[in-house]
Amino acid sequence: MPCLFCKIIAKEIPAEIVFENDQVLAFLDIGPVSEGHTLVVPKRHAENLSSGSEEDAQSLIFAVHDLAPRILQAVGADGYNLGMNHGESAGQEVMHTHMHIMPRKSGMHRSFTKLRPSAHEIHIVAEKIRLQQ
Amino acid sequence: MPCLFCKIIAKEIPAEIVFENDQVLAFLDIGPVSEGHTLVVPKRHAENLSSGSEEDAQSLIFAVHDLAPRILQAVGADGYNLGMNHGESAGQEVMHTHMHIMPRKSGMHRSFTKLRPSAHEIHIVAEKIRLQQ
Repeated sequence: MPCLFCKIIAKEIPAEIVFENDQVLAFLDIGPVSEGHTLVVPKRHAENLSSGSEEDAQSLIFAVHDLAPRILQAVGADGYNLGMNHGESAGQEVMHTHMHIMPRKSGMHRSFTKLRPSAHEIHIVAEKIRLQQ
Repeated sequence: MPCLFCKIIAKEIPAEIVFENDQVLAFLDIGPVSEGHTLVVPKRHAENLSSGSEEDAQSLIFAVHDLAPRILQAVGADGYNLGMNHGESAGQEVMHTHMHIMPRKSGMHRSFTKLRPSAHEIHIVAEKIRLQQ
């Protein structure tokens, strides 16, 4: 079965893309744990960071380094959790390397429970992030 | 007050070091959530990934890329969570960029509760990881 994230990268499945270059794509998680929860993925398929190339690892972390402050600015957050799950025992759900950027705000509970915003609500957040670029 | 991780990097405070190069240091967390829980830190002080340099971000992810499989091998794990907390609202406790590598095993509960192994128990785990190098 083709990989879900490869389909998003190939634009065969729509996603709210907030950043793209030759190496990586970043789009909003449809089951966010906080407003602005973003997934950053290398375009080249690899199941996890260690089985992918060093070059892709570099592209991924550079994208996170540049993108995270813009996401925080867009949603009015003052911190973020980065997370990456490798393997089923670690809770990896899509077997294509992906880094979670989860914005956090002072005074708000740091939940990892998936929210269920509407497609429209996710679109509004994506627009705010895209405007930061 | 001098930074705790800067003191570890300067070898003023002991730690169970499992990897070191010119740019980064990796050592075992003394309050691990799983056996082999490792912290990887850039040697140059920065509060978080985005305020540090791209070069340090690259060195950090390269170290994780190479080190994680060795840690898994050493402790008999088959997956791992990567995590990084930026800012107090995200639960950052030491204000020096650090990536958590938390090994996971199939069939075992994925806890984020800090365990309290003895210094000797942590030393034994570190020795196993160092032997993989």
